[in-house]
Amino acid sequence: MKTEAALLVEQGKPLVLAELSIPALKPGQVLVEIAYSGACGTQVMEWRGDKGPDRWLPHCLGHEGTGTVIDAGAGVTKVKEGDAVVLSWIRGGGAETGGCKYDWDGKEVNAGGVTTFQRHAVVSENRLTPLPAGLTAETAILLGCAAPTGMGAVHNVLQARAGDSIAIFGTGGIGLNACMAAAFAGAIPIIGIDPKESRRELAKAYGATHVIDPTSEDVVDAIKAIAPGGVDLAVEASGSSKVMAGAVEAVRGQGGRVVVIGNAKLGDDLTISPSVFNQGKSLMGTWGGDSAPDRDYARFGKLLASGRFPIRGLLSDPYSLDQATQALEDLAAGRVARPLIDMSKR
Amino acid sequence: MKTEAALLVEQGKPLVLAELSIPALKPGQVLVEIAYSGACGTQVMEWRGDKGPDRWLPHCLGHEGTGTVIDAGAGVTKVKEGDAVVLSWIRGGGAETGGCKYDWDGKEVNAGGVTTFQRHAVVSENRLTPLPAGLTAETAILLGCAAPTGMGAVHNVLQARAGDSIAIFGTGGIGLNACMAAAFAGAIPIIGIDPKESRRELAKAYGATHVIDPTSEDVVDAIKAIAPGGVDLAVEASGSSKVMAGAVEAVRGQGGRVVVIGNAKLGDDLTISPSVFNQGKSLMGTWGGDSAPDRDYARFGKLLASGRFPIRGLLSDPYSLDQATQALEDLAAGRVARPLIDMSKR
Repeated sequence: MKTEAALLVEQGKPLVLAELSIPALKPGQVLVEIAYSGACGTQVMEWRGDKGPDRWLPHCLGHEGTGTVIDAGAGVTKVKEGDAVVLSWIRGGGAETGGCKYDWDGKEVNAGGVTTFQRHAVVSENRLTPLPAGLTAETAILLGCAAPTGMGAVHNVLQARAGDSIAIFGTGGIGLNACMAAAFAGAIPIIGIDPKESRRELAKAYGATHVIDPTSEDVVDAIKAIAPGGVDLAVEASGSSKVMAGAVEAVRGQGGRVVVIGNAKLGDDLTISPSVFNQGKSLMGTWGGDSAPDRDYARFGKLLASGRFPIRGLLSDPYSLDQATQALEDLAAGRVARPLIDMSKR
Repeated sequence: MKTEAALLVEQGKPLVLAELSIPALKPGQVLVEIAYSGACGTQVMEWRGDKGPDRWLPHCLGHEGTGTVIDAGAGVTKVKEGDAVVLSWIRGGGAETGGCKYDWDGKEVNAGGVTTFQRHAVVSENRLTPLPAGLTAETAILLGCAAPTGMGAVHNVLQARAGDSIAIFGTGGIGLNACMAAAFAGAIPIIGIDPKESRRELAKAYGATHVIDPTSEDVVDAIKAIAPGGVDLAVEASGSSKVMAGAVEAVRGQGGRVVVIGNAKLGDDLTISPSVFNQGKSLMGTWGGDSAPDRDYARFGKLLASGRFPIRGLLSDPYSLDQATQALEDLAAGRVARPLIDMSKR
């Protein structure tokens, strides 16, 4: 069986639409017909080469999507043919099968345990979760990455409680999920910081009670004017070490916590005075918002499906698969918060 | 009423033994006859001026001790005359009265809410806790700072559980308390790292299952040889940003946590790649091990009094008050883990 995929062949160059042969399923692998794929900063960084040389080229891309199970390898019990599923890079229960290799006219193409910039994908059982009730296959792509990362950072890592004050630095796809999560948890105030006006407007629509433009105001002063002494919690979703240092300054001593979910750029080191730790501030890292798909995705799905926020608005207008490069360009330029690649669009 | 105190008059110079007049107690203040005082890195840094110029000179010193209540100001309910108490810089319940000013032959001497390098001290009610059963006034000075900071870092901040692997960087007074706390919590292995052989030997006596000499081995390699993939938890108790960066390297991804309790030196900035946060590592700060005296001191006291570790050995031979400068010098040079100043010694 053959399928079509948008491959990364050379860093910084347009993705290449290629016809791949799908290998026979190994135990624990699942063949999924992809309905929708999202895209996030990770793909932009892979595409631009922000983390340095890439020894896996050519390879498949994408780590969040939705689709339907077409076939399952031996031993798979979590999903069966016909099931609607969420594809996510975060590992849940089920077999871990490692990556997969496709054939492209005699050339080998690498793929991780889950890839989604393609019409069909061989996926490791543990990257699949049943699509929760109340969400469409379109909006459920949020559960593949942005929601578990952004909402998990607020609910699992920071463990925000009603009444906590929170600042969210960078209100792109993941930051907006953090805004919603803060609102669901009852945080007050919720301060969104982003240099782009369109993103500040989105922040207001997705839970922020205040927004700050870092290009026109001193962010730490502005935050402390809203939350005297500093905020209890902060989410760093910009990926800039300079912004990260500002987030540390913006949280209060004796318990203020910053969670870093922005993707670090190679060489963009963070320099801070260790005295912040003596003041009782913490800098928390996280792997996918500490989310466990089998425990968290149904809950996040229920929140997203609650109707409190217009979640379709978090996603771009649909791109076709052959517009995948454009999707990454638009994401990199901040023209869209979360690109949506619709496999049915030609 | 008059008393005697070892004052910091000039940074870097020997402390000055001075006769002070004790002011009348304000509401919420308590007059304590000090039995024993400890000393920690904070006093060394104040004395040497590691944090820059000191606008409070001349001032009293010391933030951990034990003693007996002599008199209590209006409204004090937590302790009464004759009570044996622990004096600690960490705030618990009771009135917060701010600092206090003594008269020294017409000169004003500053003091914080608690000071202990003196025979009698005016202390804010909220810095006092009843001396727990089973501890002598001598060993209970550990509850003033080293135990709540070191044990609290492991129990409250890292929340170490039985079976967690842990590395403790710097096994001086606070690091040794962290070692004991890790052993009490069932951590395995417990790896103590210190350049001084005497301190490595102490680490073994106070719970470490392994020790590493950073002057003769690559610490991260040595830790990973003991705990493949890195340790679950680390305590940074050296105060060096270089050691701190090593601790971040030594913990595993996807949940590894470093708590920083070492005192930062002015200008010794920490530089790290933010990618460690993407790997799911966290750098936790803490204010006194997140310890709440009224909740934690009786529990820490019970553990210290359990007899599992020879806790008297954590303290130096006694210094008299007029040897306070010597105590700081010996601590700074690493000749003692925790100086003990015995007010009854002349």
